[in-house]
Formats: sequence, structure tokens, C-alpha cells
Amino acid sequence: MGAEPIGRNKWELDTPALCLDAAKLERNIARMAEYVLSRGIALRPHAKTHKCPTVAWMQLRAGAIGITCAKLSEAEVLAQAGIRDMLIANQVVGPDKVTRLAALATYTRVLVAVDDADNAEAISTAAVSRGVTVGVLVEVDVGMHRCGVPAGEPALALAQRVAALPGLRMEGLMGYEGQAVMIPDLAERTRVTREAMAQLIATRDLLLNAGLPVNIVSGAGTGTYAITGEVAGVTELQAGSYATMDARYRDLGAPFENALTVLARVVSVTAPDIAITDAGLKAMTTEFGMPALVGLEGWTVKGLAEEHGNLRRTGGRMLQRGEPVEFIPSHGCTTINLHDAFYVTRNDVVEAVWPIAARGCIR
Amino acid sequence: MGAEPIGRNKWELDTPALCLDAAKLERNIARMAEYVLSRGIALRPHAKTHKCPTVAWMQLRAGAIGITCAKLSEAEVLAQAGIRDMLIANQVVGPDKVTRLAALATYTRVLVAVDDADNAEAISTAAVSRGVTVGVLVEVDVGMHRCGVPAGEPALALAQRVAALPGLRMEGLMGYEGQAVMIPDLAERTRVTREAMAQLIATRDLLLNAGLPVNIVSGAGTGTYAITGEVAGVTELQAGSYATMDARYRDLGAPFENALTVLARVVSVTAPDIAITDAGLKAMTTEFGMPALVGLEGWTVKGLAEEHGNLRRTGGRMLQRGEPVEFIPSHGCTTINLHDAFYVTRNDVVEAVWPIAARGCIR
Repeated sequence: MGAEPIGRNKWELDTPALCLDAAKLERNIARMAEYVLSRGIALRPHAKTHKCPTVAWMQLRAGAIGITCAKLSEAEVLAQAGIRDMLIANQVVGPDKVTRLAALATYTRVLVAVDDADNAEAISTAAVSRGVTVGVLVEVDVGMHRCGVPAGEPALALAQRVAALPGLRMEGLMGYEGQAVMIPDLAERTRVTREAMAQLIATRDLLLNAGLPVNIVSGAGTGTYAITGEVAGVTELQAGSYATMDARYRDLGAPFENALTVLARVVSVTAPDIAITDAGLKAMTTEFGMPALVGLEGWTVKGLAEEHGNLRRTGGRMLQRGEPVEFIPSHGCTTINLHDAFYVTRNDVVEAVWPIAARGCIR
Repeated sequence: MGAEPIGRNKWELDTPALCLDAAKLERNIARMAEYVLSRGIALRPHAKTHKCPTVAWMQLRAGAIGITCAKLSEAEVLAQAGIRDMLIANQVVGPDKVTRLAALATYTRVLVAVDDADNAEAISTAAVSRGVTVGVLVEVDVGMHRCGVPAGEPALALAQRVAALPGLRMEGLMGYEGQAVMIPDLAERTRVTREAMAQLIATRDLLLNAGLPVNIVSGAGTGTYAITGEVAGVTELQAGSYATMDARYRDLGAPFENALTVLARVVSVTAPDIAITDAGLKAMTTEFGMPALVGLEGWTVKGLAEEHGNLRRTGGRMLQRGEPVEFIPSHGCTTINLHDAFYVTRNDVVEAVWPIAARGCIR
């Protein structure tokens, strides 16, 4: 950033700049808070999307009961920002990480996903040696076939093992219906989600019948929150993208506003129908497709190179060198992870710069 | 990183970890240095790949005459590390950046690519007001159709304008044959490269005939350095990936060793033919395809999710939870940009941790 950005007009920012519209962010957070309140369930929003303690605190102040993380190192950063209730919704594996997990549990409440008895034992040993208790959600594979034990008896057997281990607190179940979140057809998405969640609820019943505690049944992404949230027995949601949003979830019809954009600038115009911008693959990711242009009739994103965006015109006016251009990233989570800060705007004026403190926290 | 990594065995590192084999890196740097020496040309290696002042200094000590950067902010970081000769091989556009460029030129030698007279004038004005001189390479579009003026008369006209502007020093021409670097067939790659460079050399002749200085004629990537390096009139190369390498350039036959790898760990094994690792899209990029597995017979990378790698087995032994797995990134430049440090190993023992100081420098 050339000059102090606070107070500057967004369109004058040095580029590329990751921008976050404060009013849209606030409305997104409020909308999800109202939804879970109306359903009588809880929200533990995923911070892997925004990686920003400031946003996490906004979510907590709006009623979220805790924060979900993908990685232990994200939880450590949130703990440094004073957050005291975290779910690490992935397996924490290996001696270094298990030691760090127990250390984190000495000063904050930690829940972790477990899908293997040996891993549960390793965490138990580390917790006992630190004199702490780590909460456990048994992760059930509800059809995505990534992590998780199979629903039913295998989940029950693991839950019984967890409940018997010292230093662990058996808290419940988690199942992520990742195979459903991106299904374009809502009826089909609903069907697949309900099928996934039915397995989780059946497993819950099995555990309850066996006398095991199931205080928490957690699932859902931004594409399925309103389906999973209707399933009786689900106690909390862990959606994350809803707060900042992206083009993919917009196209899937998620009822949230695109608060997140990338501001770029035209750096070269070599022909009337070509404009090259300064935002490429190091500013926006493309695994879910090209970013969407904001308000530029007749232009499309032909491709992103490492350091450049390649825009093509089939109609509308020419672009000028130096002109700002705004994009909605196709995938917010991985795009945010490229940047060090959000330029937070209200009515197009920068009102804050928020560090993306957990950027790069992959361990 | 859980414990101090220096002195640890690489395979015990907490994961994901971006690893750099020191001996391979040194041999790659030496091999390119020997090549340019044998050709009597110069090397100004591109730092957009490694983004690391330590590697840049190794390249300079091996004989490189300066460093190439993609972005002004990368050059600023290298200048902080004591490097005093930088080519910014892209357009520097907008009032903030032009001011910063002139500021950088007060304490280091700066060359910048220019493809537009208005932009040249803006840089001239800023340079004059700071009392500095900025070196200029006129960027010629040699067939990639991204940035650059057309070869021939348009390039001559811009060069004349640059040469006439105060605060600028007309230094020469640059043309990046990006359309050629990834052509699999070497004969075709050679043909396209020679065609591109012929335009650059013809433009050089035009400028020389007009009495303009052309001290520098710069081009080449790692896929074309040995073709471009043979073209009479090319004075220097700006390849970058050769130092660390990646799977794409290995597959294209570049004669360098894969010094760069990502170490991951298996975090879940839910079936004998499936292994899930802790390194996903936030640890390795996929725009050039999946990363390559190192030494795991019978396994392939089925896909990367945000936080997970999904490995599938068609033969060979099963993988165990907790086991380390090593990948060669398909695209080194964007993968390195996800990480904060290289874990530098020799004979699989960590001997240093080098900050990727220019990571995220996109402005």
C-alpha cells in the first residue's frame, strides 16, 4: 500500500487489494445468526474461510458459540486473539501436533475430530501428561469418503474407545456432507444432504442407546446449512463461507451477499478488446473457475496467469490503462489465503485494515 | 513447527512443510551460471519463483548480474536484503506505484518494463521530482499477446519517446516468449521461440539504426533458456524456475533437479486403497495439474481439496496413518507463494529455515 489506506476511497487503493464490504459482511453474519436462532440450534462458524480473528469475534458477538478451524495452527492464532472455544474439524496427527493440541487445551476449550482409535490414544496420552481434557467429536464419513469412520457400528466402537480414554471428553459426532454442498440442483442437493445426515442421526441414536454422551451433532457448509439445519438431531452448524461469500456460492443460490472482492487495475491495453490487469493466480484462485467481474458489461475473464488477469471484450466500452476493475473470487477460502489483510470498506471508503492473521496456517 | 527444525531429520518435520534440497538448488544455480558463461551472455534470474532473498543472493554470488522481479513490492523486499540491481519485468502503473518506483530508485538501480508512452511519462515525472533515473526496457509483444508493444515501428516510436524523457534511461528491449515455454515438443518449442526472438532482434536492429541505445535484450523462461540463449543479439536471460524446479518443467525436459518438494503426512486411512494427507490446495497449487508423488509405487494423486490430499492406490503397499509423503509441486511459483519459509535440507537433515520474504508481494 503506497499511502495510509484508512479514509481513502476504495477505487483509489493500490492494487491488487482484497476488499471486504463491512455492511454486507455484517448482514451476512446477522442473517446466519437469525437462521440458527429460528431453528433453535447453534452456530460454530468455520474460520478456514476468513482466517481473521476480527471476523471471528464479530461472529461470536452475533451469537456463535465457538469457532471451527481446519488446522491446529489456525486455532492457535485465534486463541492468541482471545477466543476460547474452538473445534478443529480435522484429524490432528503426529507427535508434534498432538503435543501442541494438549498445550492449546491448557488455556482454551478445544474440540477435535477423531476417526481412529490410535489417534485418540495419542491425544489421550498427551492430554493426561499435560493434565488437561480435550473434547472429541467422532468424525463419521457421511458419504464424501474423505476422512471419518463409517456410520453405525464402527462409529459406535470408536466412540466407546474415546469415552473410555482418560484426558478425552466424548462430546458427540461430526459429519461433513461435502459431496452435497456444490450440487447445483437444489432438490438433488437436498436429497443427498438428507441422506448423509440420516446416517449421522442414526449413528447418534446408536450411541445414545449405548449410553454414550452425544451433546454435539455438527455438520453443514454454506451450500447446505438450510437443509442440514432442518434435520432433527443436528445441534450445530459449521458453515464458513457465508460471511464473506464467493462467486461459487452465489451461483448456487446461497442467500448471502458478496462482501469479498479483489480490486485490480488495468496495466496494459494492447488492443480495444483486450485488457490485462495486475491480479493473477497469486491474487485469486481458479480451482472453482474464473473469478466474476463486477459491473463490466461485455467483458469476461479469459484467464489468469501468475501475475496477470486477461480480460476480453465482446461488447461495452473499452477499458483504460490505470482503471480499477473489481472481481468476485470463485473460491473465497483459497483466495483469502493468498492475502495478508482485508481492506474493509463502507460506502466505498476504507474504514479498517484487518490482518488475515491465520493466513498460511496449514499445520 | 512444533520443535526447532534445524538439525532435525526432514521426515520428522511437522507437516505440511515446503522443503528445498540445498545440494540440488546449488547444482541448478551452478548449471545455469555455467550455461550463460559458455554463451557469453548474462543472467538476471527471476525472483517471482522463489521470492527469497537468500536464493537471490546465491544466484548473484554465482555470477548473475541482477535480479528480475514481477512486482515492485518484490523488488522492495530484495532491496531490503541488500540487493542493488533489479529489473521489474512488468508494467508499474498507477500513482502509488510510480511514486514507490522512484523512491526505490533513490537507493538501488532499477529497470522497469514499459509498453505505453503515458506510463513512461508518469515514471519520468516521478523520477525527475525525486532527482533519480529509472532504467527502461521497452517491452515488445513477441507473440504471447499479453503486455508489450508490437514489434517494429510501434516499439521504435515508444523507445524514441522513452529516450527523450528526462529521468529515464533507455536501456533496451525485453520480450517474453511465454507462448513457447510450455510447448511439449522441443522442435516446435524451438521453432516458436526462434520466431518470437526474431521479432525482438529485428526490433533491436531498427532501434540501433535509429541511433537508440540497446544495451539489453532480455527474454527466456526455464523452458526456453537454451533456445533463446543461442539467439544472436540476446544479451541476458530472465529464467526463474530453474533454481527450485517443479514437475511441469521436469516433464518438459528442463535439465535441472527437483529441489523443491512439499512434505505432507497421511492423516486418515479409511480403506486400503485410499490415503488422505494434510496438504491440500492451501499447500500446493493445481493450475498446472496435480503434484507428483515422490517414490510411492502404485499411488496417484486423485485430487486436492482445500486442506486435504486424496491419494489412491492401484498397486504397491498400503500407507499408514502418520506416514510422511513427499510431493513435487506441478507449479513451483504459485506453490512457494503459499508458504512462509523453506525448510532447507542436506542429506535429509534440515540445515536452515529461509524466510520467503516476498511471499504475497503482489503489488
